[in-house]
Amino acid sequence: VSSAAIIGLGLVGGSLARDLAAHGWRVVGHDCDADVLEAARRSGVLNQSLGSDLEGLEDVDVTVLAVPVQEGPQLLRLLQPRLGASALVLDVGSTKRAICAQAEALGLGTCFVGAHPFVGDHRSGWAASRTGLFCGARVFLCPLPTTPDAVLERARELWHLLDARTEVISADAHDAQLAWSSHLPQLVSSALAGALHSAGILPQQLGRGGRDVTRLAASDPQVWTGIVLENAGYTVQALALLERCLADLRRHIESSDEAAIRAAFVRASRWARANEPT
Amino acid sequence: VSSAAIIGLGLVGGSLARDLAAHGWRVVGHDCDADVLEAARRSGVLNQSLGSDLEGLEDVDVTVLAVPVQEGPQLLRLLQPRLGASALVLDVGSTKRAICAQAEALGLGTCFVGAHPFVGDHRSGWAASRTGLFCGARVFLCPLPTTPDAVLERARELWHLLDARTEVISADAHDAQLAWSSHLPQLVSSALAGALHSAGILPQQLGRGGRDVTRLAASDPQVWTGIVLENAGYTVQALALLERCLADLRRHIESSDEAAIRAAFVRASRWARANEPT
Repeated sequence: VSSAAIIGLGLVGGSLARDLAAHGWRVVGHDCDADVLEAARRSGVLNQSLGSDLEGLEDVDVTVLAVPVQEGPQLLRLLQPRLGASALVLDVGSTKRAICAQAEALGLGTCFVGAHPFVGDHRSGWAASRTGLFCGARVFLCPLPTTPDAVLERARELWHLLDARTEVISADAHDAQLAWSSHLPQLVSSALAGALHSAGILPQQLGRGGRDVTRLAASDPQVWTGIVLENAGYTVQALALLERCLADLRRHIESSDEAAIRAAFVRASRWARANEPT
Repeated sequence: VSSAAIIGLGLVGGSLARDLAAHGWRVVGHDCDADVLEAARRSGVLNQSLGSDLEGLEDVDVTVLAVPVQEGPQLLRLLQPRLGASALVLDVGSTKRAICAQAEALGLGTCFVGAHPFVGDHRSGWAASRTGLFCGARVFLCPLPTTPDAVLERARELWHLLDARTEVISADAHDAQLAWSSHLPQLVSSALAGALHSAGILPQQLGRGGRDVTRLAASDPQVWTGIVLENAGYTVQALALLERCLADLRRHIESSDEAAIRAAFVRASRWARANEPT
């Protein structure tokens, strides 16, 4: 029987714990919220809790850090003395440079692989966790320069067991891409919600389309504060380009430039429709 | 048997034709796309097509203009000589000032009510039309100052027949509110799609949340060009406030102002979560 320790039982950690337990793994876990930990134990997902200073970690095959990204590096340092038996150590954060650099600095190159299962939406926490979350999902894997092929392969197998698809990418390329494909949409949705709030508009006044655009705004503020702080450089670049697109559009409307407005909508619509099932 | 003429068989006109036909109404119609007209006839929704210069309109109880907003005022002028028997004339456009002003100028105060069924999403056209589209939907009604109560009541009854909820509002208040609740989310989604296109990101690279934010970008460019041109004043105000929210957020990230970033996410998330079913 394989065993895993999951530190942090939110949406991703909780879902991972559920899936591995469903596959017959022995799952131990920890969460800083005692109620969450108790709920996970009562549900039968956890075989046992880790001790308050995480004793019990020494005996597992796989250790997964599933905490907000700003807590990852420090937690990894705290865990290091107990990682002896773990053949594989993963994190599951949405940014990869800081945690990979920390793993490198701690000399964890023989067992660490940064991972980012790209599964989130606006929901968060243990209450939102569920089996099958990773089914069909993309999981980015960022090995360290020193990660042995066999360890990377072990990480791949873990995610393939849960029917996810894996994609190996450098931590820097990951953070650059996700600034656009994930962090910018989150910031846009949150900024729109902020503007609507300022204008005195209630969520109930939006139509179906507007609810789609603002849905992400409900995401966990703590999680996202950490993500954009860590990925500040790329995120700021993405925001700056979006601000230019919006300002262009506003000026076209101000000057009643019908051709330019139509061109912007056509470009956006062609791009978005490339996504539709044919 | 009641009868209606629907001019324009897109998402809203087509769905309205389907619903009224399903309620046993005699429905005649017109669309500038001959294929759409033929499809609507073959599906049994239309009893007959109106002639190319809309002869046949004289005999119906209700006339509905369901064309892009920039075509509405001119169409209303063309129709006016044939509106004799129509006890009720409606449009269904997303902006209301221009069409209501035109109806007023044409002396249609005895039969016209501006209407906006708030049902759209990114889909458009006859192919997207369906029965039940208006079920549970809000429909804004903008009577003219001279619209008799009995005519407004008739408009209400028509929409209540389709299980929609009606809300009477002035054309100006409607356009001011919808600039925020509908036009701004559309512009944001389109601008984000444009920025992602510029950055070389494909729609397939987005996660579930990013797909939500960009879904509206697939909306019909022609329809939306007309809407933002007509509602330019209010739309520009909304865009300018959103640009300030984005620039503030970007500056907070640039200066690593964790408290300010968190406050923005918390504000957005509280607003968005007020929308969730409890």
